[in-house]
Amino acid sequence: MNAPRIFPLNAWYIAAWSYEIGKREPLARTVCNNKMVLWRKADGSLAVLEDACWHRLLPLSMGWLEGETLVCRYHGLGFDGKGQCTRMPSQDNLNPAAKVRSYPALDRHRYVWVWPGDPALADPALVPDMHWNDDPEWAGDGKTLFAKCDYRLFVDNLMDLTHESFVHITSIGSKHVAETPMTTTHAGRTVTSTRWMLDIDAPPFWRAQLGRPGNVDRWQIIRFEAPCTIVLDVGVAPAGTGAPTGDRSQGVNGRVLNSITPETDTTCMYFWSMTRNYKLNDQSLTSLLREANANIFLEDLVVVEAQQRYISEHPDAPLRNLNIDAGSMRARKIIDDMIAAETRIAAE
Amino acid sequence: MNAPRIFPLNAWYIAAWSYEIGKREPLARTVCNNKMVLWRKADGSLAVLEDACWHRLLPLSMGWLEGETLVCRYHGLGFDGKGQCTRMPSQDNLNPAAKVRSYPALDRHRYVWVWPGDPALADPALVPDMHWNDDPEWAGDGKTLFAKCDYRLFVDNLMDLTHESFVHITSIGSKHVAETPMTTTHAGRTVTSTRWMLDIDAPPFWRAQLGRPGNVDRWQIIRFEAPCTIVLDVGVAPAGTGAPTGDRSQGVNGRVLNSITPETDTTCMYFWSMTRNYKLNDQSLTSLLREANANIFLEDLVVVEAQQRYISEHPDAPLRNLNIDAGSMRARKIIDDMIAAETRIAAE
Amino acid sequence: MNAPRIFPLNAWYIAAWSYEIGKREPLARTVCNNKMVLWRKADGSLAVLEDACWHRLLPLSMGWLEGETLVCRYHGLGFDGKGQCTRMPSQDNLNPAAKVRSYPALDRHRYVWVWPGDPALADPALVPDMHWNDDPEWAGDGKTLFAKCDYRLFVDNLMDLTHESFVHITSIGSKHVAETPMTTTHAGRTVTSTRWMLDIDAPPFWRAQLGRPGNVDRWQIIRFEAPCTIVLDVGVAPAGTGAPTGDRSQGVNGRVLNSITPETDTTCMYFWSMTRNYKLNDQSLTSLLREANANIFLEDLVVVEAQQRYISEHPDAPLRNLNIDAGSMRARKIIDDMIAAETRIAAE
Repeated sequence: MNAPRIFPLNAWYIAAWSYEIGKREPLARTVCNNKMVLWRKADGSLAVLEDACWHRLLPLSMGWLEGETLVCRYHGLGFDGKGQCTRMPSQDNLNPAAKVRSYPALDRHRYVWVWPGDPALADPALVPDMHWNDDPEWAGDGKTLFAKCDYRLFVDNLMDLTHESFVHITSIGSKHVAETPMTTTHAGRTVTSTRWMLDIDAPPFWRAQLGRPGNVDRWQIIRFEAPCTIVLDVGVAPAGTGAPTGDRSQGVNGRVLNSITPETDTTCMYFWSMTRNYKLNDQSLTSLLREANANIFLEDLVVVEAQQRYISEHPDAPLRNLNIDAGSMRARKIIDDMIAAETRIAAE
Repeated sequence: MNAPRIFPLNAWYIAAWSYEIGKREPLARTVCNNKMVLWRKADGSLAVLEDACWHRLLPLSMGWLEGETLVCRYHGLGFDGKGQCTRMPSQDNLNPAAKVRSYPALDRHRYVWVWPGDPALADPALVPDMHWNDDPEWAGDGKTLFAKCDYRLFVDNLMDLTHESFVHITSIGSKHVAETPMTTTHAGRTVTSTRWMLDIDAPPFWRAQLGRPGNVDRWQIIRFEAPCTIVLDVGVAPAGTGAPTGDRSQGVNGRVLNSITPETDTTCMYFWSMTRNYKLNDQSLTSLLREANANIFLEDLVVVEAQQRYISEHPDAPLRNLNIDAGSMRARKIIDDMIAAETRIAAE
Repeated sequence: MNAPRIFPLNAWYIAAWSYEIGKREPLARTVCNNKMVLWRKADGSLAVLEDACWHRLLPLSMGWLEGETLVCRYHGLGFDGKGQCTRMPSQDNLNPAAKVRSYPALDRHRYVWVWPGDPALADPALVPDMHWNDDPEWAGDGKTLFAKCDYRLFVDNLMDLTHESFVHITSIGSKHVAETPMTTTHAGRTVTSTRWMLDIDAPPFWRAQLGRPGNVDRWQIIRFEAPCTIVLDVGVAPAGTGAPTGDRSQGVNGRVLNSITPETDTTCMYFWSMTRNYKLNDQSLTSLLREANANIFLEDLVVVEAQQRYISEHPDAPLRNLNIDAGSMRARKIIDDMIAAETRIAAE
């Protein structure tokens, strides 16, 4: 009856943009099949609880905040940020067992991260690196895409940018991407796929960013960090100015930050941000890039949701791999190994 | 595969308001997972049949009435009020086995009651008491709310009015309700919970009904009659005029009649009526109270449907009880005992 | 878990009108639970493939045609009309196993027919006879109705026109139909039910077609050809001019062509055409008859979809038979025998 789990639980997942969580209104989110309610305490720190009242299971996110207490809309039970019930109606003695689950949470890189697994293992050092999102040397902004698919279909999508030549044929596609092979390496929980396109005609987007004529060296370096964060290091430099060997000083460089949080087995929240290391104070450019990217990602959304519909109707149909899938195969293997390790520990 | 049954079958359930069933058009309703078609015969008595033609299962409610015969829209088979097929197309000999199930039914208290269980047990004396709905000493009107939830979530809701202080915080809520304990008694198929709030400031609604200043004694007496009828005896009298000891002559009194018929395991029809024993001929007041109450019940609807969504996604999550749940715990126990008794009889 | 199969696979089914399939855009259709993508090659012949890329299961119908190659929208894999992958991104060596299933297909009688079963058995001689649709002695047109029901409910519906007297009571219904018995014969994969109504008052529709006063002999000859094609031979001639014994020369005659392709167990595509052997060049009449018939079939749609809803909720409820069901009983038996024969072969 139960399908095998498709995501590790002992990992940090983005539940929201930091700006979305305030002190006035609780917010409901679902992460790895866990319903959660999120808010900020008076000191600005995060509180994340299971989104169901201990008493009669009404979602606590339907309630309201009174100071540090989250009040259930149904019978007024109150809970503190740790999930302990601190208030019951018509009752002076509080049952100390009246407690809902709380989840470790922290703000980092403009996102709220939660840990749906064993709280004892929730090490802040394990938060995936998306520092470009609040690094003063970088500028950018992003959005959230709610999608009806297994989050791994977006991981596959991002680990191989060959699809740009087809899915994005009318927007950012270029034949050079599909024609140039990638090299893939991996270490620990990361996978890196690298594609250098040397001395090519710059695609229109990058031509405009670079602001000068002539051929370019173009790079796409894709870094996966398990279970679901992918940072794209993309850019161009005038051909022959040393970018492939490390001197990007003549070029322009972007980081496309992506983290796809599973909500359920067939839905996910895709948090992304489009950052750059030039024209840092040009908010119009920030908005332009954000909206252009949002439109491009809608082209991916159509594809991955169509895949999901077919997969849901044909659960035994195999996903097959080509050379271009080296990165996504390795990423899926790391995810599978993390799940298997959790399952072994649980079975011991 | 099959979830355990959550309602007794040997009981009277409201299927419709009496005015909804006429002699011209059959009406479809679902009661306890039984699809039914209802109409009135020439003498005004009720006919209630299984809503599927004996022949090819088309809902008979899609057909039409010709005198005392319900005609199937598909091939014209005709059925009398007992479910016997009295007409077949292109066929002179009628198969006497061609019969659909009929259900005991009666009009009482402005409602149509049906009995989905063993017809031999359908004793009219078992119809729950909602006589205020057609008692000349009382006036009032009501509506039907179709809800996507287990009917017992409404039973819980009504058996404890503490929720008024939270769910209805902006309409009829008052801190006195949550602060004052109830006493609960039970006998046979009934449970009674009583709450007296003595010498309190009257809430605005009751202040207006009473029409005079000064503190009041306020009461809420909740009477459950299995499996799903709850009558609220509510009112106020000037403080100290003897209401708690039986003299309500200085006060104003309402009966809120509620009966929640399960359609399926996760949907129900909630029939309610708001009656009073004063200003009997004030139709404006009747309308005003009906509409005000309808709005208040929408606040409950949001809550019970949200509970249901969580329960459906988490079928093993426990419902827990507080002191305030003494009434609903007892009501649910009576329901469970009725179901268990039916199951034992069926197994013998 | 798996319900028994309700359609034979070794049979021709209509997937589309011939005009719907072109050389520019692939079309998605579902036949017998097989997702298919259809297009025409340069020579006008049909290509029909499984609608899922060999690589990552994206529906190929979301892709585009480049000459004779269907290109996947996701990573640009190309497939020829036989399903062989002829193009892969960033890869020179093509895996010869990279092939998606192809289906036999042909154009006949203005329809595209596909064979979802064993291709070795796909004999064009087995295409059901619907030749009136492109016979120069006949004229007419039709439409497609997408319905939420088991295709056999439409077979039942068409095999017994008694329902005209009830379902179509306000349009084409006549009491003569329900009152006159049919005779039913069968041979091989066909069933024929015949009803002659002699010397009757013509119904308004046929009165107008005939264009002269006086009683008529009216006929309805229903021919089922397994698994899902039903041709209605309907018409009237002046009473006593010899129609029952073969001389229809004074009358008017129509053929209502019907073929109901199962998409899934509970959805189907109903392809129909309304043809006649008089006023062949009157396109206004063709349009009028097509639109009138489309409206009549909507009356059937309401009925069969309501049956399906009841059946889906009550999978064990029996369908019962009357005298009028001789034709549909025989048709269903032929279908069942075909499925059983396929199952035996598969088990050997």
